[in-house]
Amino acid sequence: MSRWKAIVSYDGTNFLGYQVQASGRTVQQEIETVLKKMHKGLAVRIAASGRTDAGVHAIGQVIHWDSALTLASEAWKKALNAMLPHDIHIEKVERVNDDFHARYGAVKKTYHYHLHIGSEPNVFNRHFAYHFPYPLALAPMREAMERLCGTHDFTSFSSARSTVEDKVRTIYSYEVQERGQELIFKVTGSGFLYNMVRIMTGTLLDVGQGRISPAAIDEMLLAKNREAAGKTAPAHGLYLYEVQY
Amino acid sequence: MSRWKAIVSYDGTNFLGYQVQASGRTVQQEIETVLKKMHKGLAVRIAASGRTDAGVHAIGQVIHWDSALTLASEAWKKALNAMLPHDIHIEKVERVNDDFHARYGAVKKTYHYHLHIGSEPNVFNRHFAYHFPYPLALAPMREAMERLCGTHDFTSFSSARSTVEDKVRTIYSYEVQERGQELIFKVTGSGFLYNMVRIMTGTLLDVGQGRISPAAIDEMLLAKNREAAGKTAPAHGLYLYEVQY
Repeated sequence: MSRWKAIVSYDGTNFLGYQVQASGRTVQQEIETVLKKMHKGLAVRIAASGRTDAGVHAIGQVIHWDSALTLASEAWKKALNAMLPHDIHIEKVERVNDDFHARYGAVKKTYHYHLHIGSEPNVFNRHFAYHFPYPLALAPMREAMERLCGTHDFTSFSSARSTVEDKVRTIYSYEVQERGQELIFKVTGSGFLYNMVRIMTGTLLDVGQGRISPAAIDEMLLAKNREAAGKTAPAHGLYLYEVQY
Repeated sequence: MSRWKAIVSYDGTNFLGYQVQASGRTVQQEIETVLKKMHKGLAVRIAASGRTDAGVHAIGQVIHWDSALTLASEAWKKALNAMLPHDIHIEKVERVNDDFHARYGAVKKTYHYHLHIGSEPNVFNRHFAYHFPYPLALAPMREAMERLCGTHDFTSFSSARSTVEDKVRTIYSYEVQERGQELIFKVTGSGFLYNMVRIMTGTLLDVGQGRISPAAIDEMLLAKNREAAGKTAPAHGLYLYEVQY
């Protein structure tokens, strides 16, 4: 048996999310179905860096699996891509040590959130960016992003449904880039709680509209209460961009 | 009764094309369904600058219709967009003279064809650009585009299924723009025969790969035979960009 790591991109639009569920199409199920075929009916379980919700996209999701097949990296990639549906693409496959773990070994993750700020909706990116046609002041948003950086208890910025005990995470960088009619928010951290990026995005939109001040971020962090922060921004603007080990 | 003109964009992915058919979802049918609702059950027929095939997109399709409703342009636009599905968007509505005709009044049309030339497929634009990961020499392609410009009989560059008599058209400009991993071909002409842009694109790809010389374009035009030209490029890279009156 040897262990394989893959970088996977997917268009989350037509998935119920990453993780296998009782019913409905998921990324994990699609990849495991292909692996099962490659292993003559033997089930192969994959592990991912983390789940993504329905509608959330990935550019650099990372998975691993164990296999007795003796294939070269390029052959794995070709075989998987030939059998996978077109909304999932394997970008890279490499052999890794047996102690590599896609989830437990992740030390940094980067998410991007895409806002379409044009006044008109765009039919071509309606699944790929959140349309927000209201004026936004970037300077206070940048100040709020700086206040989110660092090590904090992010309870206020995680779904009340989150079950993890320890809600302390570190954000290493948080920036926003203007690209045509899009704003792209890029955040890198030690890890993210359930819905954390989407709640931070929703809160930044409140700051950008002047509904709250950047300094309010500090109070929200201290409150440790989901109701202190802003709304959860929609899933379809979010991309899991990169996972570092 | 007054006549209204609208500029319409649509993502052609989930349509069987523009024109109403016996069964299946079309752009015309979706818009006429909404107009019928707005006219309390009275059927309203729309006319478009031309049809687009299944999978072909539009950024600037133009339609017109007649109505006894007394609405301002902005009210038309709002009402239509509120009821239309998200893959169709009305960009603009304006009142026009009774002699305006979306089809017969068109004097110039511009189509864009998007090629994704990166080595890897991109899950996010798989419906919006044709993936062509092979080397292309742009200089001979540009020469071929110049040879297509002007007034010619384009029989060789139209589907054998085309039923129009007169196959003489004028191409005013044909250029290619590089944008990141995309090549965008922009062609403006007096009008285009059935599949003409897609056949010209397929032929340009032959030129770009060195399979034929740019000068071969002249012979193809003279042949007046569909089999003289290259393959029909896929629908999903094509956009009806603009119609001028």
